[in-house]
Amino acid sequence: MGKTFGYCWGFFCLLIIPFAVADWNILHQRTRNGLKISLKNYCESWRMNVELHNIRDFEVVPEECTSYIGKYVRSTQYTVDSERATEECLVYLSTSCDLKKDSRDAWIFDIDDTLLSTVPYYKENLYGGNKLNLTSLEEWMGKGKAPALDHSLKLFNELKSRGVQIILVSARREHLRAATIDNLVNVGFHGWAGLVLRDYADELVSVRTYKSDVRRKLISQGYRIWGIVGDQYSSIEGLPSAGRTFKLPNPMYYVA
Amino acid sequence: MGKTFGYCWGFFCLLIIPFAVADWNILHQRTRNGLKISLKNYCESWRMNVELHNIRDFEVVPEECTSYIGKYVRSTQYTVDSERATEECLVYLSTSCDLKKDSRDAWIFDIDDTLLSTVPYYKENLYGGNKLNLTSLEEWMGKGKAPALDHSLKLFNELKSRGVQIILVSARREHLRAATIDNLVNVGFHGWAGLVLRDYADELVSVRTYKSDVRRKLISQGYRIWGIVGDQYSSIEGLPSAGRTFKLPNPMYYVA
Repeated sequence: MGKTFGYCWGFFCLLIIPFAVADWNILHQRTRNGLKISLKNYCESWRMNVELHNIRDFEVVPEECTSYIGKYVRSTQYTVDSERATEECLVYLSTSCDLKKDSRDAWIFDIDDTLLSTVPYYKENLYGGNKLNLTSLEEWMGKGKAPALDHSLKLFNELKSRGVQIILVSARREHLRAATIDNLVNVGFHGWAGLVLRDYADELVSVRTYKSDVRRKLISQGYRIWGIVGDQYSSIEGLPSAGRTFKLPNPMYYVA
Repeated sequence: MGKTFGYCWGFFCLLIIPFAVADWNILHQRTRNGLKISLKNYCESWRMNVELHNIRDFEVVPEECTSYIGKYVRSTQYTVDSERATEECLVYLSTSCDLKKDSRDAWIFDIDDTLLSTVPYYKENLYGGNKLNLTSLEEWMGKGKAPALDHSLKLFNELKSRGVQIILVSARREHLRAATIDNLVNVGFHGWAGLVLRDYADELVSVRTYKSDVRRKLISQGYRIWGIVGDQYSSIEGLPSAGRTFKLPNPMYYVA
């Protein structure tokens, strides 16, 4: 937003900025290449490039986009985007998975912002505009009040009904196990085959490595991992992989 | 759009449909889970899930979304989304690439919808709503009139100025070599280190395999591939990979 100041002269500038900023945002932003864009253009391209995995390792949502991101994660569009992803899982399951039904067909789910929504927590934290405070986030998780993401619950139940073993693999830490189980069961998730959380040793490696290691163990136990659904690339990238991976939108934070 | 007909009775229906369709599209769509959405919601979620690589192997853009997709690829938003991707390449180049400057630092670009735009062709083909007609597409490519994507030209020149060798790897076929070179040079691209097109043998494997094989050869020649920019997942997925990969938006077609 620094450029706004370039149009100001001396004291007059200080007087008009508080009123002018909003308008400049909407009408007078320019990209590095000189293209005239709105703040919405800017924030939408930020979000799109997060989802394309072109923007990585961000610690906070850009300050000027927190209200845009907040609006998105509370919008119908966010729900429709997510629903469509879970529908594609079912298309894949019906057209490309030759399930053996021997209790070794498996599907992996992430937990936060895949099965349970952390939007109520991030609502109080500028929708990702504040740097992560692990203590406060875990305190919130410990209450076990995260709502279900309905589209994922539907997929979860559909997979179960087809005899697929559901394994939850989360970067949540072990001490949150009881609260996590309570939360999941209370909002309708039950009947999973495994719930893997991070113990102390797992915290020494990246989440991506931890999750890849879990998949390796599952495969060595004879599981065929048909699919993974996660909201972070660290949940779906890395080897060994799965038959297919599905990425849910999440522009609020990044887990490496 | 079939549901529209459910609200019609006999002859009256035939009279009102032409006027009613647009309104139903905007206000009365529902997702499988019962969520009330607009056609824009639907098409935006389709586009987002293509970019997330949740929707794969589509042969055409859904008929009801061709006008939405056409609007997007001609919009400022498409340009900003693409510009942001190429800016992230420069961030990566400046912060994470320890270039050796021994003529073995390399960067790979796709051609169509990465360096050159095929939007003028797809404009005449329902923006991806028509099934691919290779003869007509190659005829258009043969004319060598595809415009440059300016953000990619900037990145191309910046990489060159830093001594990075630029290798173009395209699924275009060999017989288009002369037209492709003419087109690239005419719109400002010159000074690349290699231009790899598909010969007959390469057509026997998927584009993804062909492009992975090209990278394997480049690496065996001593190249360090710092980055790849492409508009298709088949350009950036598969092993061996590169230091980083960058995906440009392209909702018009899918290359496996």
